Amino acid sequence: MPKVSDEYRTARREEILDAAVRCVAREGFHKTTMAHVIAESGLSAGSVYGYFKGKRELIKAIATRALSGFAEVLESVAVAPGPVTPAGGLRAVFSKVERMSAESGGAFPKVVVHAWSEAARDAEVREVVRTNVDKVQLAWLDVLARAEADGTIAPGDRTASARVLVGLMPGFLVQGLLLDEIDGESYVDGFEALMRPPTG
Amino acid sequence: MPKVSDEYRTARREEILDAAVRCVAREGFHKTTMAHVIAESGLSAGSVYGYFKGKRELIKAIATRALSGFAEVLESVAVAPGPVTPAGGLRAVFSKVERMSAESGGAFPKVVVHAWSEAARDAEVREVVRTNVDKVQLAWLDVLARAEADGTIAPGDRTASARVLVGLMPGFLVQGLLLDEIDGESYVDGFEALMRPPTG
Repeated sequence: MPKVSDEYRTARREEILDAAVRCVAREGFHKTTMAHVIAESGLSAGSVYGYFKGKRELIKAIATRALSGFAEVLESVAVAPGPVTPAGGLRAVFSKVERMSAESGGAFPKVVVHAWSEAARDAEVREVVRTNVDKVQLAWLDVLARAEADGTIAPGDRTASARVLVGLMPGFLVQGLLLDEIDGESYVDGFEALMRPPTG
Repeated sequence: MPKVSDEYRTARREEILDAAVRCVAREGFHKTTMAHVIAESGLSAGSVYGYFKGKRELIKAIATRALSGFAEVLESVAVAPGPVTPAGGLRAVFSKVERMSAESGGAFPKVVVHAWSEAARDAEVREVVRTNVDKVQLAWLDVLARAEADGTIAPGDRTASARVLVGLMPGFLVQGLLLDEIDGESYVDGFEALMRPPTG
């Protein structure tokens, strides 16, 4: 039997995850079955099960993939040149959200919302989502430390502030799902307007 | 047949909604059936169907009840004495979230997350959620107009800022679901820390 390269396995795994994301966006996690994902992927059942033992493995992989990108984006912001600001971090996160939405044909925000819903019901999924949200929170702490060092924000309780910044993403996603016109730029503008101190 | 009072009907309707909320918190909207709600309520099928024609009517009533309280809370903030601030509005909203969570034995945040998930799948539910989110947004606009008049925030794009403030609630709810230790006070503290301009 020929040895399958890691690149091949990674690409195949992503292909199955893409198929699963399309199924979940249409139907939610509850109604999506392994049979749906297999049909959507166009691969054999044996091939799909070779990557994911079952639906819960798929859900966890989807949640991890959806969230891990945000920590990476923020880690680049924390080491970028120029004065770093929380608004700059948000801009980077929201443009990542918009890119992932576009690339997935609008499936991404729906899948994230379904993942929260699943996390509310299933402790194992909740643990995966929590671990990944923690990574995003840690990345925000780096951005805030950098912003303090750059003098763009006042020193303060960075943990509490990081939580608020993490929390701005769910709000953006939910509103994006409900209101078709929302965009990341105007959202960050609204955030910056709130940051501006009253003059006089 | 004796005429049933409006008070009686309202109380009975609330009782059915409470039962539905408990079912949905346990199982999500998908797996909840009218039969479950009837069993949970302890009422007869005829009685429950007299208030709600089916599951979708229940979902819409739950979403409306969950969100309409927030607009009311913010409307009181907008006309309260003393200088009004966005942080004060958030404090009022989060304490309402905490009260509703406690009163429902932790069911409330789960049900809200399940409602978003349902809104991502079902256009009719999405419309109900959107209408209620719009009301919350309008109430935030009143709070921001008042805060500008009181000089606690700089004049700016109030619509964009209202959207961010609306969006802070989903983030708070999702994190409350995932991290057990989160509380409204520390969340608002984090928000206020971000608002504080750097000195120097």
